[in-house]
Amino acid sequence: MQHQNILFTNNVSDAITSILKDKKFNRLFVITDSNTRQHVLPLLADNSFIAEAVNVNIEPGDIHKNLDSLASVWQQIGEAGGTRHSMVINLGGGVVTDLGGFAASTFKRGIPFINIPTTLLSAVDAAIGGKTGINFRGLKNEIGVFNEASDVIISTAFIATLPIEEVKSGYAEMLKHGLLKGQSAFDKLLNYDITSGDPDHLLTLLQESVEIKADVVRQDPHEHGIRRALNLGHTAGHAFESYAMQRNAPIAHGYAVAWGLVIDAVLSHIVCHFDSKLIYRIADYVLKNYGAFHFTCDDYDALLELMRHDKKSQHGEINCTLLGAPGDIRIDCEIAPDTMKEAFDLYRDLMHI
Amino acid sequence: MQHQNILFTNNVSDAITSILKDKKFNRLFVITDSNTRQHVLPLLADNSFIAEAVNVNIEPGDIHKNLDSLASVWQQIGEAGGTRHSMVINLGGGVVTDLGGFAASTFKRGIPFINIPTTLLSAVDAAIGGKTGINFRGLKNEIGVFNEASDVIISTAFIATLPIEEVKSGYAEMLKHGLLKGQSAFDKLLNYDITSGDPDHLLTLLQESVEIKADVVRQDPHEHGIRRALNLGHTAGHAFESYAMQRNAPIAHGYAVAWGLVIDAVLSHIVCHFDSKLIYRIADYVLKNYGAFHFTCDDYDALLELMRHDKKSQHGEINCTLLGAPGDIRIDCEIAPDTMKEAFDLYRDLMHI
Repeated sequence: MQHQNILFTNNVSDAITSILKDKKFNRLFVITDSNTRQHVLPLLADNSFIAEAVNVNIEPGDIHKNLDSLASVWQQIGEAGGTRHSMVINLGGGVVTDLGGFAASTFKRGIPFINIPTTLLSAVDAAIGGKTGINFRGLKNEIGVFNEASDVIISTAFIATLPIEEVKSGYAEMLKHGLLKGQSAFDKLLNYDITSGDPDHLLTLLQESVEIKADVVRQDPHEHGIRRALNLGHTAGHAFESYAMQRNAPIAHGYAVAWGLVIDAVLSHIVCHFDSKLIYRIADYVLKNYGAFHFTCDDYDALLELMRHDKKSQHGEINCTLLGAPGDIRIDCEIAPDTMKEAFDLYRDLMHI
Repeated sequence: MQHQNILFTNNVSDAITSILKDKKFNRLFVITDSNTRQHVLPLLADNSFIAEAVNVNIEPGDIHKNLDSLASVWQQIGEAGGTRHSMVINLGGGVVTDLGGFAASTFKRGIPFINIPTTLLSAVDAAIGGKTGINFRGLKNEIGVFNEASDVIISTAFIATLPIEEVKSGYAEMLKHGLLKGQSAFDKLLNYDITSGDPDHLLTLLQESVEIKADVVRQDPHEHGIRRALNLGHTAGHAFESYAMQRNAPIAHGYAVAWGLVIDAVLSHIVCHFDSKLIYRIADYVLKNYGAFHFTCDDYDALLELMRHDKKSQHGEINCTLLGAPGDIRIDCEIAPDTMKEAFDLYRDLMHI
């Protein structure tokens, strides 16, 4: 896989110019959702590339990360004269970078694209690493391809304007990266006050976090091995997300990951002797900042069923990434249903449910 | 790009077994259209892999190479328990290998697939080289990805049962490969009687032809340069196809290519001093075996407009692959509209229209 160019800067307009002045293309498309079209696109209006670009817009929210929106993007690009020599900028959160990246990867069998994540979550997660796609049949990211943005511009310039819930959502993925890196990286993150809103400090932490992810992706772009480390917190997290969607009360991905990290900390203790003191620190931090995802014993079987349909599952078993300690990664741990139920029980105790 | 394994054999069942016995997968899907489900799938019923596979079916014909069929394939694979560890066999003509290849390339961000082309056209063209996709907004192959089948089984076992028009359609692509290779390869093809139906002789010619294409694709998988040689006959051919579709009188792809080869021979003469005697030989062969595509001066502008929207076009110009002589390839020739109109005039003379 070609090396992906990642820029860390709060001068996004200059970064766009420095990237595009060396590229050849006949037409530039900027994909936004209605939020970033209203709040972010105007901030870049002075940039001469952006001023001449064609804006392609989708509705915001994970519920619109679907085939209808995808077909609409293909159609808008085609109708505005897009060719295989055109170029796409995805300006938005994870929905825009995932769906826009997939649209670009498949339009005329693939045109190049640049990601400018506007949320912390997409900066630290969706915009890096080449996972593109849409939801289908109620399943997250059921359809897509692996294809990296040629360039990614990471900033906290737009993140400062977001609601604190959005920032917390992204921070959960940063906590995950900290746990994968080691004790001191994780401590640094637990000691940062999410609510302080210091963009420069946050950009420093973000850069470290993105580099942890980029390093893992570089080793294993197609997720045959070590990339599955990034699934920490995600087997339970995805199940919580899908379950919440089925209950018509969707939850933010990052919140689901935060709760999934508590589950995986508990499982890591049961299966890999992960330090129990650290479970309490994680659970306290998550409860304080994210509250709890509520469910009862009556929901266990439905959650297990969702986990069996996870992409990581090979033969209907439940597959988790666990830790012996921060930085000591154990991928492909098969979890027996009864063990998962035990973890659910402990999660509910820790979250005071 | 990984090396693509191409087997030439008329014992397809043994070839399937030899390929699949070394692969790991949890479920096998065989994608067919209603024709190959009825006429070809039963011929492989004794194969133990095929007997246990899940059949996914689409309607036949280029008109069904669309988003609805694609979504239906994704849904059928998902509902039958497909995971990222599943495997797909595309058993059919170009519609099945193009659409099935795209479905496999995007299901759970990509699962491996094997192509078993059942028509001469798909054997010589669609099944090799990694171009997958669907039509969209009335434009051919507007959406798709480059992704090769891991293995391709080429045979004439099923081709013998096809109507002669199907065989002729595929043979036009073989003529194209012959022109790209050189005079003697081309002569060998002009001397073969398409209507003789000798499967062993045809398999020999087919193998040479497939190897010419595979060699070009190996040099340039993503069509940045020499692969565009394979567009010989296709700029006019695609325009004829789209125009025929607009007139609700669709024509076979191979026939469109045969007529497109006449156009490109004429253009090659005008632009690159291609031998005029050879134009007459090509035109006679095409007229005798394929008849003529009929159009008048009133259709010229509409045809030019379609050519400007071809994927090869960068800025609305008309881009053709031409020849100085058989084997002497000139890619990216920009053709002025008046030159193309001159070629249309000469084509109509040659085809006695």
